[in-house]
Amino acid sequence: MPEGTLSQDFKVSTGPLPASRKVYVAGERHPGLRVAMREIDLTPAANEPPVRVYDPSGPYTDPAVAIDIRLGLAPRRDAWIRARGDVEEQPGRTVRPEDNGLKAGEASAVPVFDRAGRKPLCAKPGKAVTQLAYARAGIVTPEMEYIAIRENLGRARAAEAKYRGESFGAAIPDFVTPEFVRDEVARGRAIIPANVNHPESEPMIIGRNFLVKINANIGNSIVTSSVAEEVDKLVWAIRWGADTVMDLSTGKHIHNIREWIIRNAPVPIGTVPIYQALEKVDGKAEELTWEIFRDTLIEQAEQGVDYFTIHAGVRLPFIPLTAKRVTGIVSRGGSIMAKWCLAHHQENFLYTHFKEICEIMRAYDVSFSLGDGLRPGSTADANDEAQFAELKTLGELTQIAWKHDVQVMIEGPGHVPMHMVKENMDLQLKHCAEAPFYTLGPLVTDIAPGYDHITSAIGAAMIGWFGTAMLCYVTPKEHLGLPDRDDVKAGVIAYKVAAHAADMAKGHPGARERDDALSRARFEFRWRDQFNLSLDPETAEKFHDQTLPADGAKLAHFCSMCGPKFCSMKISQEVRDYAEQGMAEKSADFRQSGGEIYKVLEGKAAAVDP
Amino acid sequence: MPEGTLSQDFKVSTGPLPASRKVYVAGERHPGLRVAMREIDLTPAANEPPVRVYDPSGPYTDPAVAIDIRLGLAPRRDAWIRARGDVEEQPGRTVRPEDNGLKAGEASAVPVFDRAGRKPLCAKPGKAVTQLAYARAGIVTPEMEYIAIRENLGRARAAEAKYRGESFGAAIPDFVTPEFVRDEVARGRAIIPANVNHPESEPMIIGRNFLVKINANIGNSIVTSSVAEEVDKLVWAIRWGADTVMDLSTGKHIHNIREWIIRNAPVPIGTVPIYQALEKVDGKAEELTWEIFRDTLIEQAEQGVDYFTIHAGVRLPFIPLTAKRVTGIVSRGGSIMAKWCLAHHQENFLYTHFKEICEIMRAYDVSFSLGDGLRPGSTADANDEAQFAELKTLGELTQIAWKHDVQVMIEGPGHVPMHMVKENMDLQLKHCAEAPFYTLGPLVTDIAPGYDHITSAIGAAMIGWFGTAMLCYVTPKEHLGLPDRDDVKAGVIAYKVAAHAADMAKGHPGARERDDALSRARFEFRWRDQFNLSLDPETAEKFHDQTLPADGAKLAHFCSMCGPKFCSMKISQEVRDYAEQGMAEKSADFRQSGGEIYKVLEGKAAAVDP
Repeated sequence: MPEGTLSQDFKVSTGPLPASRKVYVAGERHPGLRVAMREIDLTPAANEPPVRVYDPSGPYTDPAVAIDIRLGLAPRRDAWIRARGDVEEQPGRTVRPEDNGLKAGEASAVPVFDRAGRKPLCAKPGKAVTQLAYARAGIVTPEMEYIAIRENLGRARAAEAKYRGESFGAAIPDFVTPEFVRDEVARGRAIIPANVNHPESEPMIIGRNFLVKINANIGNSIVTSSVAEEVDKLVWAIRWGADTVMDLSTGKHIHNIREWIIRNAPVPIGTVPIYQALEKVDGKAEELTWEIFRDTLIEQAEQGVDYFTIHAGVRLPFIPLTAKRVTGIVSRGGSIMAKWCLAHHQENFLYTHFKEICEIMRAYDVSFSLGDGLRPGSTADANDEAQFAELKTLGELTQIAWKHDVQVMIEGPGHVPMHMVKENMDLQLKHCAEAPFYTLGPLVTDIAPGYDHITSAIGAAMIGWFGTAMLCYVTPKEHLGLPDRDDVKAGVIAYKVAAHAADMAKGHPGARERDDALSRARFEFRWRDQFNLSLDPETAEKFHDQTLPADGAKLAHFCSMCGPKFCSMKISQEVRDYAEQGMAEKSADFRQSGGEIYKVLEGKAAAVDP
Repeated sequence: MPEGTLSQDFKVSTGPLPASRKVYVAGERHPGLRVAMREIDLTPAANEPPVRVYDPSGPYTDPAVAIDIRLGLAPRRDAWIRARGDVEEQPGRTVRPEDNGLKAGEASAVPVFDRAGRKPLCAKPGKAVTQLAYARAGIVTPEMEYIAIRENLGRARAAEAKYRGESFGAAIPDFVTPEFVRDEVARGRAIIPANVNHPESEPMIIGRNFLVKINANIGNSIVTSSVAEEVDKLVWAIRWGADTVMDLSTGKHIHNIREWIIRNAPVPIGTVPIYQALEKVDGKAEELTWEIFRDTLIEQAEQGVDYFTIHAGVRLPFIPLTAKRVTGIVSRGGSIMAKWCLAHHQENFLYTHFKEICEIMRAYDVSFSLGDGLRPGSTADANDEAQFAELKTLGELTQIAWKHDVQVMIEGPGHVPMHMVKENMDLQLKHCAEAPFYTLGPLVTDIAPGYDHITSAIGAAMIGWFGTAMLCYVTPKEHLGLPDRDDVKAGVIAYKVAAHAADMAKGHPGARERDDALSRARFEFRWRDQFNLSLDPETAEKFHDQTLPADGAKLAHFCSMCGPKFCSMKISQEVRDYAEQGMAEKSADFRQSGGEIYKVLEGKAAAVDP
């Protein structure tokens, strides 16, 4: 494929999920603000209103929006950003062949996205254009109002439900106001990743007092995959519920691929800039310099990356602490920096230049994702000295970032047995002053490669419950290969399960609304509603059809698991009818006749004689 | 297929798993006792001994044993059983057409298993032939010694590891002796399901102070599946690690199918006898009688069923407590009994005849699995009054069973949000005097039909950690249809993950041995060892091959996830080499030169200036 063209058959998945419509809820403070949600219609038999669910899938699931990957999404936040009056257009850094891993004169096999003359924005001199700076100044941005409406789903109805969870000291409100969002951001307890150069993104928040979010990693590597696959994975991941996407591409053409991804992303995009910096020095970690890294930060900030993983906590003195580990250093960024530190016998340049990094990031509102370069890569290495020395350092760096008005979240492990999971959360809260925690799993055992979406969903659900704000997904291919489309979906669904289970356990008002609607559908044999309310309606229906394919079976009051005679739901409905009609009366009769049976309920001994 | 023949193409999966051999460890107390284990050979590069793992797969994975489904497995326990001198052969109950759901004169489509004249055994009058009775009498049975050896895997080596978990008050020994097994059984804290008519089974134990076990459900329903499929599912389920199998067949031919399953099962088999009793009254719950049920118990006890789920806790007064639930009664057995209770307005006959049930079960050593007929079927119904009223009743029934020397475990939920899981374990321990808990999941959210092996593995791992002794698997087809072979495997692997994660978190000595071996293989790029040590070697290798299929890649020091330049494991090994060669020296130099970097480790402030 020659440079500058895109194959005609470049398609992504569009259209609504079954029985779903895109709805837009208008804001009150900011004219024209419309918050996208998904509404699932139930069948008439339900006699229930549609169920609204949080929806990060963007315009791709709205049939009213024409999708053309070559044009990118509409820059809806652009007017908000410019209205603040604190940014200015820049000529922008010139793209160089090495940005795509090429030699001078070499053409990229990936076409250049046509920005149609749009120039990068940057803060005017001296301005901090971050949501943190606005929040501290008492400003409720449109982004904050958008988020408040988004996070409020189901809370009005839930207020009556008296549903209580265990939030381990979090401060989850009954109702999310824009002011609450502002306050949480101002305290550093939540972040809104929202680069001024990514106006296509729909605002979302990451924080312990909000719904638990999930991230999906995509990205090519030198060994496999192309731009078409990566954009498709992005759209596919958000279709199934990813709240942010990290582009972990390495190898050639990564500048161009990243541009395609960001221009078509309605969710925040994160990257690990050191990967690209390493490409620029041909993979030789020891040849990395602050200047090359700095230039890469600006390159990516101008493109619109919303958060950067920065491994500034991999300090030289911590590296020897990993030498006796079973699996050493398993973070790619961490190992690159460790190698650099050792080669030069100098302190990590990300640490020594941290202030300068903050200054760059505040000029675009790129958030920190402070990388855990020393996270454990096996349960044997969990919660060791190296890991917690780094965590403490990340806490120190958080304070520095906050001084510069830069938003921060903290990355966490990794591989951790269940009984050691909570210590991670407790120490993170302690050392990092409640900055949001963002963990990879954790995987609770090492023995199931091929199933690490499950080993890690267990740890993720637990740590999400304990207070982690965003869970980075793990796919079934983890440790084995690069995830394909099916793996991305499997990872996203497993993590939606984990995040939702955490929301429910934390006692988020409204979190159980969808569960209850689905349970009612189940009990009433509304198969179609049961499918449509599930995280993956297509798979649910496919599984049902494998044993009872006839369309009539969608209305049947039983399923193939038990068959009609043994269906407990069916019998249970008979019990309910029976009880409603006759039980009260019969019970009264029985009590009057001196029957013993009901005494059990009154705390007396069982009627049966042992 | 005419009665009495079995198709020639009736095949089950045999042969060892990759790089695995069946090994037998000799006992010390009982001559001829040989405990089957699986040994995984590592590649020469590992320079490590083979890794032994717990192996419930039976002779099917031993190429030295000829498998003929028509003959069944060798009755290895037969000599032990007869040597105790407390059982006698019986003519046995005559099989009637209605046992297979047939009318008089109708032939079963399922051939009759040829028992080759073997007659059912039963206790001599007045004798209790249960492992509990022996344990209380101070007798260490061969079954107990077998179990001690089996459970001890890896403990000798682990003694040095100083690995500690959190067991929530369990009493996990450093080393399992036959006497410890006896004592735990005598206290009722563990059970050994071992019907005298199932001599083909290899002894295993279910208890909080032993490794967490998993159960796989199989069984046809009136809608689908045949005997060939069910025996194949049995062999398939234990191949991947199921410790017991429940045959939940309903519909026709279930007597015959059950016989095929038991004669070919090296693991304990559980059933829910009320299902067959209901078939005998043509699905009309209200026509069930104690006599029909009693006859069914004897029928199944003579065949060799090792544990019976008995829903004796579904008491009449508890039924109205379910009327306002979102999903009512979801246990099949529970709803059958509820319907019977309401139809007659009488107390549950399983409750009123509980003593007589005990007397039958002690004569064959069938263990109780006291059913939780009122378990919650949705997170909305979790931990409600109905559920806990029944649990308390199960505790009362436990005491009665123990009086009759009958072994007992207690079934648990179900659908429970994470923050309500532990209460189930705590109340079970309290009400049921530490009798083993056996839970179905629990599922921690209701919104993911098609993925309930994952929603439930999260709850299962947690409740296993808290003290549940056996986890009943849930397959991806739960709530949607009858599991096929692939679903059975997916369920078993998800539950092996959950059980193993629980073992590790509880601090079982030796539990982490396989994890550590796999982690070392991962760090050293021994791909082949990594595959072979995993729970599912075939899937791990297949996933790897999808992106790097060349055989050479099995030796490559990188994988397709990151490619060669970015491999953190590779860089980390370089770091380790570097550190070993030069770090100590360089560190000393640096300290002498007054360098600041190492002060962080000594608790001082970071060297960087914010």
